[in-house]
Amino acid sequence: MSEKQKKPQKLKARLPRGFVDRSAADIHATNEMIAKIREVYERYGFDPVETPLFEYTDALGKFLPDADRPNEGVFSLQDDDDQWMSLRYDLTAPLARHVAENFNEIQLPFRTYRAGYVFRNEKPGPGRFRQFMQFDADTVGAAGVQADAEMCMMMADTMEALGIQRGDYVIRVNNRKVLDGVMEAIGLGGEENAGRRLSVLRAIDKLDKFGPEGVRLLLGEGRRDESGDFTKGAGLDEEQIKIVEEKIVFFSTGARFTRAKSGGLVDNVVLDQRQLDDPEALWLDNLDLAEMVGQRGADNDTGRAAAAELRIMAEIFSAAGYGTHRITIDPSVVRGLEYYTGPVFEAELLFDVTNEKGEKVVFGSVGGGGRYDGLVSRFMGQPVPATGFSIGVSRLMTALKNLGKLGQDEVLGPVLVTVMDGDVDSMGRYQRFTQELRNAGIRAEMYQGNWKKFGNQLKYADRRGSPIAIIQGGDERAEGVVQIKDLIEGKRLSGEIEDNAAWREARVAQETVPEADLVAKVKEILAAQAEDRRRAG
Amino acid sequence: MSEKQKKPQKLKARLPRGFVDRSAADIHATNEMIAKIREVYERYGFDPVETPLFEYTDALGKFLPDADRPNEGVFSLQDDDDQWMSLRYDLTAPLARHVAENFNEIQLPFRTYRAGYVFRNEKPGPGRFRQFMQFDADTVGAAGVQADAEMCMMMADTMEALGIQRGDYVIRVNNRKVLDGVMEAIGLGGEENAGRRLSVLRAIDKLDKFGPEGVRLLLGEGRRDESGDFTKGAGLDEEQIKIVEEKIVFFSTGARFTRAKSGGLVDNVVLDQRQLDDPEALWLDNLDLAEMVGQRGADNDTGRAAAAELRIMAEIFSAAGYGTHRITIDPSVVRGLEYYTGPVFEAELLFDVTNEKGEKVVFGSVGGGGRYDGLVSRFMGQPVPATGFSIGVSRLMTALKNLGKLGQDEVLGPVLVTVMDGDVDSMGRYQRFTQELRNAGIRAEMYQGNWKKFGNQLKYADRRGSPIAIIQGGDERAEGVVQIKDLIEGKRLSGEIEDNAAWREARVAQETVPEADLVAKVKEILAAQAEDRRRAG
Repeated sequence: MSEKQKKPQKLKARLPRGFVDRSAADIHATNEMIAKIREVYERYGFDPVETPLFEYTDALGKFLPDADRPNEGVFSLQDDDDQWMSLRYDLTAPLARHVAENFNEIQLPFRTYRAGYVFRNEKPGPGRFRQFMQFDADTVGAAGVQADAEMCMMMADTMEALGIQRGDYVIRVNNRKVLDGVMEAIGLGGEENAGRRLSVLRAIDKLDKFGPEGVRLLLGEGRRDESGDFTKGAGLDEEQIKIVEEKIVFFSTGARFTRAKSGGLVDNVVLDQRQLDDPEALWLDNLDLAEMVGQRGADNDTGRAAAAELRIMAEIFSAAGYGTHRITIDPSVVRGLEYYTGPVFEAELLFDVTNEKGEKVVFGSVGGGGRYDGLVSRFMGQPVPATGFSIGVSRLMTALKNLGKLGQDEVLGPVLVTVMDGDVDSMGRYQRFTQELRNAGIRAEMYQGNWKKFGNQLKYADRRGSPIAIIQGGDERAEGVVQIKDLIEGKRLSGEIEDNAAWREARVAQETVPEADLVAKVKEILAAQAEDRRRAG
Repeated sequence: MSEKQKKPQKLKARLPRGFVDRSAADIHATNEMIAKIREVYERYGFDPVETPLFEYTDALGKFLPDADRPNEGVFSLQDDDDQWMSLRYDLTAPLARHVAENFNEIQLPFRTYRAGYVFRNEKPGPGRFRQFMQFDADTVGAAGVQADAEMCMMMADTMEALGIQRGDYVIRVNNRKVLDGVMEAIGLGGEENAGRRLSVLRAIDKLDKFGPEGVRLLLGEGRRDESGDFTKGAGLDEEQIKIVEEKIVFFSTGARFTRAKSGGLVDNVVLDQRQLDDPEALWLDNLDLAEMVGQRGADNDTGRAAAAELRIMAEIFSAAGYGTHRITIDPSVVRGLEYYTGPVFEAELLFDVTNEKGEKVVFGSVGGGGRYDGLVSRFMGQPVPATGFSIGVSRLMTALKNLGKLGQDEVLGPVLVTVMDGDVDSMGRYQRFTQELRNAGIRAEMYQGNWKKFGNQLKYADRRGSPIAIIQGGDERAEGVVQIKDLIEGKRLSGEIEDNAAWREARVAQETVPEADLVAKVKEILAAQAEDRRRAG
């Protein structure tokens, strides 16, 4: 109880783990990126619709990618009326709720897009946050795979609109029925095998990360990584593993191999392990690939249905002029989410980046999606087909920064009106200068810190990247003039000037003009600086 | 237990109370508004900085406007490590945490802005949501009231940038020290009177709502409203009430009265109850008003300090050309938040709107702010002065809609490529037309619903506001042509056409062109429609 008398401890300023603040540069870059994506989606006929951050937990359902922890993953709390609410973990489940709730008012097909934060209540790690932004597009009420094909083409166009060159990205397409067909072929059909099917899918999904050899281990007994940790496998026998490899893994490995050989460009795909060493490997387009999926998977109805759907998509890609160097069929695409029922797709960036261990790695996936025909109908008495695509905004932004494709429209620092005297009358004048500049559309501010240390004002101008400083001391005030200092020129010419008097003495790149000419002279200098930047490239 | 065997109940699609979905029109309007506000803030030299939606509960502190429920109001949950986290309820407390956490890297003064969602865990009502958007600007590390003055001018400029005319808004300015001085004058200084001071402030804050007579009741025993509900008053005696009225309430009432008389324009203020009926009432500017606050409040140091600060602000407004019709000193401005320590300000819209009861009322406040010198220093061993302004985005949007100032850049519906045949080859062609239009920058989509009911395609085009439909049946395909239908012209001329054949027969406003001329012809029709809209005004 005597604790109460103690001086209260100073409060510690810190963010919860897995959450971050965003800097001006990050925000400008995100806005720039989102504007470009939005432009493509609008052109494709999509309109914005947004949902709030909370949903009732039961309406969200449990469709998190990481099925290992079905009861974790979301931030939940109980409302006043005892109902459980959760923060959305993606933008798809809330859209399904929105469509079901407003079904009578909505004109189908319903083509919408939205950008927003989603939340995952999981252990944060490097590049793994508990709040991050997604940008989704969805078409609800379109049963045909032409809607899925359109999603893929829209994503290809989005990548290019963001400045990612053809050859530096590819949209990989598969169909969940391809995978289901293979599962049936190895005797893993039926409700009772749901768990093992998931293990097999997860193993296939690791092809990018561990290669065909790693997948083989995960399909069988399991895989021990370099650190000695053991991941239990799906427990397939040799015969089953061989089928999965031939139908899916080798096929996809071939695609990757050819892609690497052709210098990053996915001009083609090889179809068999034996072709990997053959430089004259067979070159095929998406129609051939769909055909091949059909031949390999056609030992049951599910496989045949998958091949038929892929063929329609391939026809559309071909007719619309999207070749395999932009969109390519790849049977190893899984997508973690449970709710997909048909076509699935993934946007992959193919250029190399250096990871935290200093290794060169392919950048990889920046988004994906697929058909989720069951998600809206959970609420309805009728089937409601739907398909969508989700972009991971932060991840894509990291990629664009690597490519130097963001931040071109850099924001210029404000013109700084310095404070030489602190009396009310002088303050009024400084503020008037500032407003005159702003009224002329020029970014400007009056120094708001402790004006008596002039060095601070200089340091501030430097840190802000101010292009120009305005100075008026008593002498100038008496004469009705102001000094205008070109800080960019000045920085080059005059080195370090640390005090008030010295700065005013340094006449280099500094001009004195009547107060009335302030705005015109500032405009003139800003124009000259812009010209300098243009010439510097 | 036999319950388990029952068919599972259909899931109900509904949003938690107090949360809403946002339509395309709302999102476009918000984006338009935010872009305009951002432009002003950037011009004033502010840069964006954003914080995540979660903070540790202790870092947020309890500074909610509604002090009646200190333990409610926020959405909180416990993290894995047992620490309590809360969703932010405003953007100021998280900014204070951000500055304290990054104090060594930040160059002061730190001028930043941010727009984002905030959350209040309270009972929702009409126009009262549990998630809403705020748009804040803050200057941290500026001790002088010139920083507060700048906030007020920036808000005035923001209102005008949004299209709100001079005279339809006013920025009202006060200083918490004015109110503190009056509290001391009526013997309510000191820590022990904190509770009663709060009651008095709340009474003054109701001047807008209940008028001077209502405030008098709330300062005394209490007030019974029309429904019979009784609100307990602050319990001041007659003498104390008289002092509060003379120093604050009558003063402000005068301001309001004159504003109303002059047809919405705050050209001036009267200073005394007796002047209310005098059409020749004294006309004063902010300097006079600051002087008057000084004369009335100068019976203690706090009052004198308040008047001095208001005078500096008045000088700056005057020098920068902001008269009382844009920014006006008003000693009744309270602002609910506890953390304000100096100047406080409020943006008020002066035009009338009709409320839910059908009554004409002044629109009122759309935002406000003030100086909060204690909020950052809670985390620090040193004082860190700060001032800021917060706009209620949804409320301001409602106002702008009332004024017809939003939605000018209306989004055009997409050109609809209809589907007449569903074979793969035809689908490919329709998709190719669509991509050609998109590649030319034209908003376009291929119909994705059940194409066999052509009436649905027409209805869809109508609901989407499609300007043009593209049609190609078997005959046209054989000839290599497409029909292009001007739907806006068509709607005027041809009335209701409900089936496929009839539509193709109706040649009004419909042209047949070779496939190669599709894009050029669509561009031509869109240009003609734009010209029609321009002429229609």
